[in-house]
Amino acid sequence: MDRVYNFSPGPSQLALPVLEKAQKDLLIYGDTGMSVMEMSHRSKMYTDIYDQAVADLRDLMAIPEEYEVLFLQGGATQQFSAIPLNLMVNKKADYIDSGNFAHLAAEESKRYGQVNVIASSREDTYAYVPEVKGLSFTEGADYLHITQNNTIYGTRFVELPESSAPLVCDASSMILSEKMDVARYGVIYAGAQKNIGPSGLCVLIVRKDLLGHAMEICPKLLNWEVQAKAGSMYNTPNTWGIYIAGLTFQWLKEMGGVAEMEKINIEKAALLYDFLDNSQLFKPTAQAKYRSRMNVTFVTGDAEKDAAFVKAAAGAGLVNLKGHRSVGGMRASIYNAMPVAGVKKLVEFMKQFEKENA
Amino acid sequence: MDRVYNFSPGPSQLALPVLEKAQKDLLIYGDTGMSVMEMSHRSKMYTDIYDQAVADLRDLMAIPEEYEVLFLQGGATQQFSAIPLNLMVNKKADYIDSGNFAHLAAEESKRYGQVNVIASSREDTYAYVPEVKGLSFTEGADYLHITQNNTIYGTRFVELPESSAPLVCDASSMILSEKMDVARYGVIYAGAQKNIGPSGLCVLIVRKDLLGHAMEICPKLLNWEVQAKAGSMYNTPNTWGIYIAGLTFQWLKEMGGVAEMEKINIEKAALLYDFLDNSQLFKPTAQAKYRSRMNVTFVTGDAEKDAAFVKAAAGAGLVNLKGHRSVGGMRASIYNAMPVAGVKKLVEFMKQFEKENA
Repeated sequence: MDRVYNFSPGPSQLALPVLEKAQKDLLIYGDTGMSVMEMSHRSKMYTDIYDQAVADLRDLMAIPEEYEVLFLQGGATQQFSAIPLNLMVNKKADYIDSGNFAHLAAEESKRYGQVNVIASSREDTYAYVPEVKGLSFTEGADYLHITQNNTIYGTRFVELPESSAPLVCDASSMILSEKMDVARYGVIYAGAQKNIGPSGLCVLIVRKDLLGHAMEICPKLLNWEVQAKAGSMYNTPNTWGIYIAGLTFQWLKEMGGVAEMEKINIEKAALLYDFLDNSQLFKPTAQAKYRSRMNVTFVTGDAEKDAAFVKAAAGAGLVNLKGHRSVGGMRASIYNAMPVAGVKKLVEFMKQFEKENA
Repeated sequence: MDRVYNFSPGPSQLALPVLEKAQKDLLIYGDTGMSVMEMSHRSKMYTDIYDQAVADLRDLMAIPEEYEVLFLQGGATQQFSAIPLNLMVNKKADYIDSGNFAHLAAEESKRYGQVNVIASSREDTYAYVPEVKGLSFTEGADYLHITQNNTIYGTRFVELPESSAPLVCDASSMILSEKMDVARYGVIYAGAQKNIGPSGLCVLIVRKDLLGHAMEICPKLLNWEVQAKAGSMYNTPNTWGIYIAGLTFQWLKEMGGVAEMEKINIEKAALLYDFLDNSQLFKPTAQAKYRSRMNVTFVTGDAEKDAAFVKAAAGAGLVNLKGHRSVGGMRASIYNAMPVAGVKKLVEFMKQFEKENA
């Protein structure tokens, strides 16, 4: 049995060298006599792994000193609640609704204060990201929330809105895939299971002056200040997830870092979009200006043909190409761990399928 | 390098057959062409793993149909908040304070309602569990919370309190180590990293009639009803953690189930306590009646000798015997995955150390 090319939106393909290292060391890590899964999170053998992961992420993203880096649980969705609970001092916030997760984030925050959706592409099935020029920001808003890449619809922000409130960004499906100027954000958070590691982990990068304002009703474990003071270990963190994330960070550094990955990701996305723009059978669904480099969405316009394609592709070792249940069609998620060779094989397969189904 | 005997209180030793299977299948699981870490949580290949884990846990603990079984994130600590947020309809609850985690659970619940600590052994450094006969329960309390085994102090409840309110039990350090009559509880919850699997996972067993009463301010992901309706997958769960938990459940079934493990655990604990009761050098710290079978705490009475013992034991492949920083001394955590041979080796080592340090 060979390994497949896995185009899943998340959990998704991991880099082979990461998996190979994890496999080799699974029973005994280094000279510790135990698996990483068996290590006390307070032991030096584990805090070394943790500290290295934090240092490598800081290095990869050039995270300034005035930001904390936390490894939390609950994925990005838990932060949909934690964000208002930690930041809503004035009890009002702005949201841009550019996709399903952006929408859910806004809905959840209504539990804790006044939420103004200042721009939305919901009426147009999120085929684009709302224009960020000329937006009316709410006076005294505690923050402005965006979802920088929309996994389901295959779109991305091509520029950032210029609010005076801190920018809070769900970067789950684009973190580490392109350079980000961290200083432009108040908070960057990302579920790990797309570009970082296994699920059950959320990376949170928060400017230190935003800590210390949590509501009294904020569950202690969701309070960022509590976790910052405890180095993400107010209680036992997801130790294995952090370890695999750390191996991924090391792999990214060996690959040349984020700038190099961005080049490769632009190349991968171009291979697919160039083919789609010239195809007689497949059509891309996202507006050209806002096309995601991580999630490429497309349709044939015929649900039966879509299903036949997904099935045939799986037979050829190209799996999880089915689009999200809410939109149908196809989606190829091509995160950092998807090599150029995987995308080339997919394009070749699509060409062949087109020829046979013209 | 050999594997050590790891007496860590958690994360802790895992069963070797579990680790070996995880290692073998790490790159490619069955005929899926991918690692379990790479599987979409909504794919059939993964939901099969999930469903089997739930079924095996139900089987092992004889969980009645009227209970939901959930695999959540955030460890037991997150449930310290989720419990009042889900159950405090009358905004009052009873707690028994039998140790550090019991205390933290009570403290956190004060954020959401009136908390009555109806019994406590805190003044006596938690050397015993408070007597459960003759307690004054609060009229109309939403629940009574206990921590059935106290990891730090090495004590356990030897009988359950008889409140008319639902019994909510933190079973983190004793679940699956002895038979539990699930029908006597309203909620059983347990961080996975002691008797179940890796950290970053919490098992929650909840009687169905207790769902649906969450406060409006309850974060959506902490709402048990939301997670019950979504089969623990309102968002992406800790897929790897659940997989390893499932392998552990299969191993426990091969070992003969919980009844058989209980016998082995009684034997392991007796080996240590019998030695300690007759030692000239080491003294057990927990009151005999309330001795834990999972965490055996002891001291020499001399901090330097304690430190020398811990260091020498580590040199002999018996690691993580240092007691919790709040109490000092030593602690041997002997969960299901610690074989009798490991305990015997520890006792032999203690005898030798005693001879050399008499």
